Amino acid sequence: MRRVLLIPKMDSMTSPVAQATRGPVTRKDVARYAGVSTAVVSYVVNKGPKKVAPATEAKVQDAIRVLGYRPNAAARALKLGSTETIGLVIPDNGNPFFSLLAHAVEDAAAELGYALLLTNSDGNLTKERRNIRNLASRQVDGVILSSVLMEPDLADLESADIRTVLLNHSADAPGFNSVGVDLFAGAKSAVEHLIGHGHTTIALAMGTNAGNFLDGREQGWLQALTEAGLPEGPIVRSLFTRAGGYAAGQRLLASAIQPTAIFASSDMQAIGIMRALHEAGRSIPDDIAIAAFDGSEEAEYTWPPLTTVKQPAQAMAKAAVSALIGGRRNVNSEHLIFPTTLQVRQSCGCRRI
Amino acid sequence: MRRVLLIPKMDSMTSPVAQATRGPVTRKDVARYAGVSTAVVSYVVNKGPKKVAPATEAKVQDAIRVLGYRPNAAARALKLGSTETIGLVIPDNGNPFFSLLAHAVEDAAAELGYALLLTNSDGNLTKERRNIRNLASRQVDGVILSSVLMEPDLADLESADIRTVLLNHSADAPGFNSVGVDLFAGAKSAVEHLIGHGHTTIALAMGTNAGNFLDGREQGWLQALTEAGLPEGPIVRSLFTRAGGYAAGQRLLASAIQPTAIFASSDMQAIGIMRALHEAGRSIPDDIAIAAFDGSEEAEYTWPPLTTVKQPAQAMAKAAVSALIGGRRNVNSEHLIFPTTLQVRQSCGCRRI
Repeated sequence: MRRVLLIPKMDSMTSPVAQATRGPVTRKDVARYAGVSTAVVSYVVNKGPKKVAPATEAKVQDAIRVLGYRPNAAARALKLGSTETIGLVIPDNGNPFFSLLAHAVEDAAAELGYALLLTNSDGNLTKERRNIRNLASRQVDGVILSSVLMEPDLADLESADIRTVLLNHSADAPGFNSVGVDLFAGAKSAVEHLIGHGHTTIALAMGTNAGNFLDGREQGWLQALTEAGLPEGPIVRSLFTRAGGYAAGQRLLASAIQPTAIFASSDMQAIGIMRALHEAGRSIPDDIAIAAFDGSEEAEYTWPPLTTVKQPAQAMAKAAVSALIGGRRNVNSEHLIFPTTLQVRQSCGCRRI
Repeated sequence: MRRVLLIPKMDSMTSPVAQATRGPVTRKDVARYAGVSTAVVSYVVNKGPKKVAPATEAKVQDAIRVLGYRPNAAARALKLGSTETIGLVIPDNGNPFFSLLAHAVEDAAAELGYALLLTNSDGNLTKERRNIRNLASRQVDGVILSSVLMEPDLADLESADIRTVLLNHSADAPGFNSVGVDLFAGAKSAVEHLIGHGHTTIALAMGTNAGNFLDGREQGWLQALTEAGLPEGPIVRSLFTRAGGYAAGQRLLASAIQPTAIFASSDMQAIGIMRALHEAGRSIPDDIAIAAFDGSEEAEYTWPPLTTVKQPAQAMAKAAVSALIGGRRNVNSEHLIFPTTLQVRQSCGCRRI
């Protein structure tokens, strides 16, 4: 590693404001500049408790802008009883679907004037619990939890006494607001599409979920096959990652019953499976077709482009933020389930138009 | 959108702690439980100013754990003069390299007990400047800026009077600590590798950077060709995105001089180019070889797997966090340049072993 030590240049790059040696701008400076009392400055900065005439507020805002005044955030938080910050716990930022979701949550929070404390769990429950405790101790106004578990342990959150919304959560969670998608209908539509291409042996590459229940995607796959009078294809379970998909693809290639199509429970898994198929010299979709679930941007650039069930990440993020810090306080818990859309590309057997 | 309204169940899911109707646990409660004064509780929570005997500290920590005490973060921030939070400004979270970098920064900050306020600029300078102002007003202890510009306007940061480190910044920035990689050497090594495969017409797919200078990657491409006595191949400029690369690939396919190899300035662009080549029926690497720059995980799962110059994201993130909040205060500004490594896969023409 090369270390370049630079002597700071004293030229036009240094702004005149930074050059002037003076302390930080105070509320008093703003009041003097605007010709109002310091109390009025407080009312403007804290948006209350007293109302300020629009013309006076404009003068104060102008003074804040000109002087570069930054109100003391900690003092403001003490007064408002709010840090104007929300915490987001996501299971894995390396998964493009979750980075998309995190970005959407940030945008939705920013629209309401809230900043986002982001934490990653790296697929690790211990890290997730530590992140939740950490956010609670920082007194965020609420937490949006996208857990590594399909059925997270909510006792922690209840005892932390912190407003929480579960995101990317497709099961009911009594006592909590939650936002998810219709996994069952989404998966069923993808498998029905593969059946429409004439496939009769359709494998399932499923992610690993702790918990004593059947994932909606697995149920959707099964229901589509049952309704079409088809037998179950082979099932492999692997991590929700590219590497997990790669291993799943190799196992499916070695399975006794060779599928002619595969439904993967995430884009990441499908991308790993496609690498395994390419390496084995199988043509996609002619030898083996594939469809997946998530709708990340990456799916548009695989070869061939991946047919996938798109989750409405922006709408889900907005709903979660709104449930957490929106105007309406929730007396009852609500479970919002968004519909998905099938994005048809070429990995399923459809041709480019 | 289906709305499921659930009546909260009153069963074992509700934790006994949450059921008990009591106010929040106070410092006084902790002091009583631990059998110490409230001042001692403060010393433990604020890690000072007075030292507490290890046995006493253990008693206090135990009381905090048992009672679920959460110190008031705003009050603590006022007292410490620190929010124990840093801000990160990244240009685009949709780019896997930057989500990798953000994740690495979060981990490095967490190790030092700092939380991360994450903001995205969406490639937009106006949004970047708003994000910086917003972080400054929240009194983060410092900002790590990965700008949308190769030469960001630092006057804003200087006037905001906030500690800043520039990340993913490969040029010198007088007055600022910065962390980057050796773009020139990295790009040169990739192009030399393509030359080693016998290519004599090597195109450059370059990202668009505002500013009156030549990007190190472009210089490295040029230098490798010059040293080998080869003519310049065609150059296309496009956005640092998959879609930008796709358009660049289509333009290279239509160019008067057909390259037999392409060096792309980012993995994302290479992924878009590969889609254009596949669609045109060109074989990679036999018809056209390709190498790129970044080293995101996605590059490992393209078809064929992408040869790319890997940036050491974890080490860069750690260095940036350490320069910002590490023990040593910087009198002079330092510019840290990390070396890259060429990850050889198959898109360049190398075969799998």
